[in-house]
Amino acid sequence: MIYFPGISDDEFIRGGIPMTKQEVRILVLAKAKIAATDIIVDIGAGTGSLSIEAALQASQGRVYAIERHAEGIELICANVAKFNVSNLKAISGSAPLALEGLPAVDVIFIGGSGGHLSEILHESDKLLKVQGRLVITAITIETLYEALHIMQAKSNYDVEAFGAQISRIRQLKTSNMLQALNPIYIIACTKKNVNQKY
Amino acid sequence: MIYFPGISDDEFIRGGIPMTKQEVRILVLAKAKIAATDIIVDIGAGTGSLSIEAALQASQGRVYAIERHAEGIELICANVAKFNVSNLKAISGSAPLALEGLPAVDVIFIGGSGGHLSEILHESDKLLKVQGRLVITAITIETLYEALHIMQAKSNYDVEAFGAQISRIRQLKTSNMLQALNPIYIIACTKKNVNQKY
Amino acid sequence: MIYFPGISDDEFIRGGIPMTKQEVRILVLAKAKIAATDIIVDIGAGTGSLSIEAALQASQGRVYAIERHAEGIELICANVAKFNVSNLKAISGSAPLALEGLPAVDVIFIGGSGGHLSEILHESDKLLKVQGRLVITAITIETLYEALHIMQAKSNYDVEAFGAQISRIRQLKTSNMLQALNPIYIIACTKKNVNQKY
Amino acid sequence: MIYFPGISDDEFIRGGIPMTKQEVRILVLAKAKIAATDIIVDIGAGTGSLSIEAALQASQGRVYAIERHAEGIELICANVAKFNVSNLKAISGSAPLALEGLPAVDVIFIGGSGGHLSEILHESDKLLKVQGRLVITAITIETLYEALHIMQAKSNYDVEAFGAQISRIRQLKTSNMLQALNPIYIIACTKKNVNQKY
Repeated sequence: MIYFPGISDDEFIRGGIPMTKQEVRILVLAKAKIAATDIIVDIGAGTGSLSIEAALQASQGRVYAIERHAEGIELICANVAKFNVSNLKAISGSAPLALEGLPAVDVIFIGGSGGHLSEILHESDKLLKVQGRLVITAITIETLYEALHIMQAKSNYDVEAFGAQISRIRQLKTSNMLQALNPIYIIACTKKNVNQKY
Repeated sequence: MIYFPGISDDEFIRGGIPMTKQEVRILVLAKAKIAATDIIVDIGAGTGSLSIEAALQASQGRVYAIERHAEGIELICANVAKFNVSNLKAISGSAPLALEGLPAVDVIFIGGSGGHLSEILHESDKLLKVQGRLVITAITIETLYEALHIMQAKSNYDVEAFGAQISRIRQLKTSNMLQALNPIYIIACTKKNVNQKY
Repeated sequence: MIYFPGISDDEFIRGGIPMTKQEVRILVLAKAKIAATDIIVDIGAGTGSLSIEAALQASQGRVYAIERHAEGIELICANVAKFNVSNLKAISGSAPLALEGLPAVDVIFIGGSGGHLSEILHESDKLLKVQGRLVITAITIETLYEALHIMQAKSNYDVEAFGAQISRIRQLKTSNMLQALNPIYIIACTKKNVNQKY
Repeated sequence: MIYFPGISDDEFIRGGIPMTKQEVRILVLAKAKIAATDIIVDIGAGTGSLSIEAALQASQGRVYAIERHAEGIELICANVAKFNVSNLKAISGSAPLALEGLPAVDVIFIGGSGGHLSEILHESDKLLKVQGRLVITAITIETLYEALHIMQAKSNYDVEAFGAQISRIRQLKTSNMLQALNPIYIIACTKKNVNQKY
């Protein structure tokens, strides 16, 4: 089966852990501009839905999915098996500590920071290659605010951000009802070459 | 206790029936421009949250709360007792049939139509006084579309409409999370004097 | 003419200054729970649209509209004249300085802070009576974040907050188009009696 | 330069014609699941932004961009030149008439219907291959309603739909402001094999 970005939510094995919804995954993946050989880290990987799609896009690359909850690690492994992905490694632990020993990466996703966003962004900067992309999803005002302020203060990053409010339309007999997903904010950062001239 | 528009959702006795949320009630009530002596009909009254607020605003008027589900009627009566409202009458039945015998009214709310929106709007027009307000809330594309088309086709109504997407901010320890309410559309119509000149 | 909350945007005399839109004004006014004799301060009053409505609600009270831009002060005065409001005083200046000498107040609106939100909230707390309401509107992530954090840290305030995304429906010949207003966040705080027991 | 879905709005040559915004293009393209050899029609192509991205994805296929406004055709041609796309043909005219003579297609985009949505959907059905995707974007209540009703009535289509409300975050000195794009609805339909069993 050919892969296309935006696997349906119900194709993933899910537990009680919140999952990045399909429409949001599509937007996040587009902002990551994943090439086939990219090395990728997904921090706060949850069920692994985003990691799985990243692994399918970076078919000759590698994805490290960091997750601190045991239930998450189990779900990631179950999804790795279901989608038959061989280039995804689940790492049980918390960032920034769990980032130690990783190679330089092309893409970093931050979906959860466990209250250590500042340290994670500091270590992420070390890990990220020039021209690399750092994509943060925020469901709290605090993550949005801190991600914007920390990244906008770095002169070697281009930062763009937007909020997405998706409402799914559900058909009920003869009518179509709107059902809101929670709003999410996406902060997409690109690491510039510091010697780059304008 | 003094009444202010926008009673908290959790002050109402609620069952399994969907309730018009506080922020939406505030907007709907503002569009209804209720005067103290107004006669009001609330079609598809549900838990009666909107009817109760309307009754508190029309303190010398009267509210007829039409609801076809037995559970709704029970909740309306429970809320009438809780808020000590004496000018609200719950009517068990479905509109447009349940509108029969009602006096001319100043305000009509339509929160549910049971698939009979067209007939309800037809009968509502007969019931509504000149300068009266008809405020429809739509959670389906069908109700939105039909309400707009039926009411915009009537030359003796001013029609304005908007969608409201409210996200409540919930404090969790050190962070604030956004939680979306479902989007709702409000169609507010004012019956013009047909002899009115421009 | 009787006053109802939510005067149409185009009834106000407007200049190049941004105006709080009708639907947002309705929500903000509801959260302020204005009684007839209330003393009110509107910080960053802009065109005065919110101040005018507050003055109409506090018909035996008083509204102080603080605005630092000369164009704003002119618009406020023009609107005071147009709506024939006699209990609204425009104050040219910046908060917190412009708050000096004001009496204790029942309601404080903050629509603009000119980068001094922290100081304004500090002075607002001194000015606000117990049981008073402080309602902040935020159109930036920074105002939202700071308002939440400063007010949630005060143990003598109840804080609730929500985002509102309004889309107006505009009729074009045979179709109805959705036009988004910018999202806005409302932080509504009530000052508790510190001796209040639970 | 490698292509990634979601070209920046300002990379396109734009005129006075409305353009599908980047975030919406990303979602629409994902729903179209474009393979390299796909034949694609874009009805109401506007500036051609979506057509250009489709042509870059269907690098061995072909895109027919139908547009009835002369200004649109000029912009499409300018963008074809700018992006150096050789597999995109601009067709001046209105659907459904302009669809005549086209080969069977894998993907149909409908971004504008000029009031002929019903006929366009009828002809689109004839043109679309089994397993083909039909993706409609709606900015009016009428297009949303009609697209849903016409397509949900066809037993040989899977229909999914959602609304997207994007707010871009714009950095202004020390603050980040939210600026709403207009809400848009996406109706994504997949043509099933009529002999398909469940």
